[in-house]
Amino acid sequence: ADFVKAMSVTESACAHAVAARSKASAQKFAESHGIKKVHDSYEALVNDPDIDVVYIGSVADTHYKLAKMCLEAKKPTLVEKPLALNYDEAKLLVDLAREQDVFFMEGMWSRFFPAMKKARSIVDAGGIGDIVCVQGDFGWNTKDCTPDDRMWNPLSGGMSYDIAMYLAMLGQVGYRGATVKNVHAVCPNKRNGMDQTILANVFFDKPDDLVGSLQMFVTGQANTEERTMIQGTRGRITITPPAHTPSNISVNYDTGRGESRQEFHDYPLPDDSWAQWNYPRSIGFAYQIQEVNECIQHDLKESEHFTLDDSLQLAYIMDEILEQIGHEGWMEDKEKRNAAKNA
Amino acid sequence: ADFVKAMSVTESACAHAVAARSKASAQKFAESHGIKKVHDSYEALVNDPDIDVVYIGSVADTHYKLAKMCLEAKKPTLVEKPLALNYDEAKLLVDLAREQDVFFMEGMWSRFFPAMKKARSIVDAGGIGDIVCVQGDFGWNTKDCTPDDRMWNPLSGGMSYDIAMYLAMLGQVGYRGATVKNVHAVCPNKRNGMDQTILANVFFDKPDDLVGSLQMFVTGQANTEERTMIQGTRGRITITPPAHTPSNISVNYDTGRGESRQEFHDYPLPDDSWAQWNYPRSIGFAYQIQEVNECIQHDLKESEHFTLDDSLQLAYIMDEILEQIGHEGWMEDKEKRNAAKNA
Repeated sequence: ADFVKAMSVTESACAHAVAARSKASAQKFAESHGIKKVHDSYEALVNDPDIDVVYIGSVADTHYKLAKMCLEAKKPTLVEKPLALNYDEAKLLVDLAREQDVFFMEGMWSRFFPAMKKARSIVDAGGIGDIVCVQGDFGWNTKDCTPDDRMWNPLSGGMSYDIAMYLAMLGQVGYRGATVKNVHAVCPNKRNGMDQTILANVFFDKPDDLVGSLQMFVTGQANTEERTMIQGTRGRITITPPAHTPSNISVNYDTGRGESRQEFHDYPLPDDSWAQWNYPRSIGFAYQIQEVNECIQHDLKESEHFTLDDSLQLAYIMDEILEQIGHEGWMEDKEKRNAAKNA
Repeated sequence: ADFVKAMSVTESACAHAVAARSKASAQKFAESHGIKKVHDSYEALVNDPDIDVVYIGSVADTHYKLAKMCLEAKKPTLVEKPLALNYDEAKLLVDLAREQDVFFMEGMWSRFFPAMKKARSIVDAGGIGDIVCVQGDFGWNTKDCTPDDRMWNPLSGGMSYDIAMYLAMLGQVGYRGATVKNVHAVCPNKRNGMDQTILANVFFDKPDDLVGSLQMFVTGQANTEERTMIQGTRGRITITPPAHTPSNISVNYDTGRGESRQEFHDYPLPDDSWAQWNYPRSIGFAYQIQEVNECIQHDLKESEHFTLDDSLQLAYIMDEILEQIGHEGWMEDKEKRNAAKNA
C-alpha cells in the first residue's frame, strides 16, 4: 500500500492494475488506492499488455513463483526483497531474467535514496581512503507481535528474513564489486524458535590483498538507533538514522586521531504529509520507482545502483547467515532442495 | 609520565620514589617530575617502607615479573594493563595477591571515569532494560609508526595488545558479573606480521537463559570515532567519543521504534591546561588514582569498579582473541608455557 502511494509523487509511474490471491481482496485494494483495473488472477495480470512493469509485493515465500511467471512472460519485473528465500532460487530467477533479456530488479529500496547514493559515490571516489570496516545496527522490538505475525512464520520468519538483508547490503556500499570471502554469523537469542538477535561479520576480498569487514548487529529484542558507519583509512561516513531510509549523511575527513573535519549532505525526503503510511518514511519508495522508470525508458535490463549480481551476493550472504544460525525453515527447505536435486 | 602528572590533581597521592631498568633513566624521570627519591633497583623500591603503593608502568612484557615481586613483598600494587601477557600469568598474580591479602589492581583507567561509572549504574539499575548488545569501535592509524614502535614488538605488538582490551572490558559495563560463554575473533588484515584489524564478538551468559552480545571493532588502519553503545530492551546508552576516556554519555529511553527521550550526563574532566601531556585526556588517570587511594584508606584489597575477577575475565577474553587471530608472540609463549608445564 505504501508503495502504491509513493508512486503518485513520481512523474511517470502509476498503478494500472492489481491482482491478489482472491479477487475480492484485489478489488478492495484497488478501491482504496484508486487503481482502475482488477485482474482475476496473477496470470491475467502478467499477460495484460497495458502493463509496463509488474511489482511483486506479496509475502516472501511467493516471490520466486510469481517472479518466475513474470519473467517467463518477458514482463519487466520489480520484486520486493528478498528475491527468493534462498540463493538457489534467486540464481534461477536472475539466470532466467538474463536469458529472457527482460528488466528485473529486487526492491532493495534503501540503495536508491540520494543519501545512500552519495555515500557510495564518496566511497567510490576514494574520498575517505580504503574502507576498513562497515558497521550497522538494525532492530525493532517484536515483543508486541501477535502469534500470527509474519515474524513467527516458520518458513520466512525471524529477524534474518525481516531485516538482516538491509545490513548485508551495506557491505556493497563500502566495497563495490568486491567478492565475499567469508561470513561468520551467530544467533545468541531465539524467541518462539525464531532468531531474534544476530551478530554477523562478512569479509570482502579487495584489491592489494586487503580484506574489507562488515559488522552487523540485527535484533528483534530492541528498537535500535539504526545507524551505519563506513570507516575508511582517511575518514568515515555516518549514514544518519534511520539508515535504511536515509535523508542525510555526515562525512568526517580525518585530520588526526580524535580530530576530523565534518561535512553534511542533506537530501530531504519528499513531503509525505498528504498520506497515511503504514511505515514512516515510506515515501522513499519513490526513489526506487523513479529508478525503475529510468531503466525501462533507457531499455536497461538492470540498475547500476543495485545490480542483479548485487542481489545474488546478498542471497549468498543471507544463505550463509541462515545456515549458520540454524534457521529451521531455511534448513528444511535446503533438505527438500537437495532431495529434489538427487531424485 | 602522564600518570605522575595526573597524581598532582588528587588530594592524597604523590610520587615518592621511582626506579627503572637503569638508575640514570630513573634519575632523569625523577628530575623532570620532581620526585624526591630514586632507587637503585626495582627490588629496593619494593622494599622501601615509605611507599604505600607501587605503580608498575613499564612495558607490558615486564608486568608479570614486577607485579609478582611487589606482591611477594606484600606491597599494594597497581599494574598498568595488561596485568600479564596471558591468562595463566594473570591468574598466578591474582591468586598471589589474594593469598598475600594485599591490595592489587590492574590499571584499566577507563572504568573509573565518572561517565563510565554512571553508564554502569544506569545499566545495573535496569534503566534501559535487559542489555542485548554492546558495540564499540577503537582504532588509530599506525601508518606513521617507526619500525621500532611498540606496535611491531613480536611479543606484545599488534592492536590486540594495544587497545582490544578497552573494548573487551565494555562487556563488563553491560553485563556485570556475567560469565563469558564464548568468543569469536577474526583478524582480516595484518601489517608487518602484526594484527591490524580485529572483529570480535563475545557472548555473556545472563540470567533467564539470555545471552548478551559484545561486538568489537578494533583497528590500526584508521583513526576511528571511538564510540560505544549499550543497547537495552528499553533504551540505549551512548558513551560519547573518545569512549576510553569519556566525559559524557547520552541515554535514550525508548518511546517507540525510531523514537526516544534523550538525557545527557556530563562529567567534565579536571582542568589539564597546566601541563603538557603525551596523550590527550591523560588527566583522567586522576580518577583511577583516587580509587586506589580510597581502597587503601578503607583497607580494601580490590576495587568494586574493576575487580580482580574482572581482570581475569578480560585476560580470558584476550587469550581467546589472541589465539583465534593467531598472534605469533602469544602462540610462541603458549608453546613455551605448555612445554614448561609438561617438563
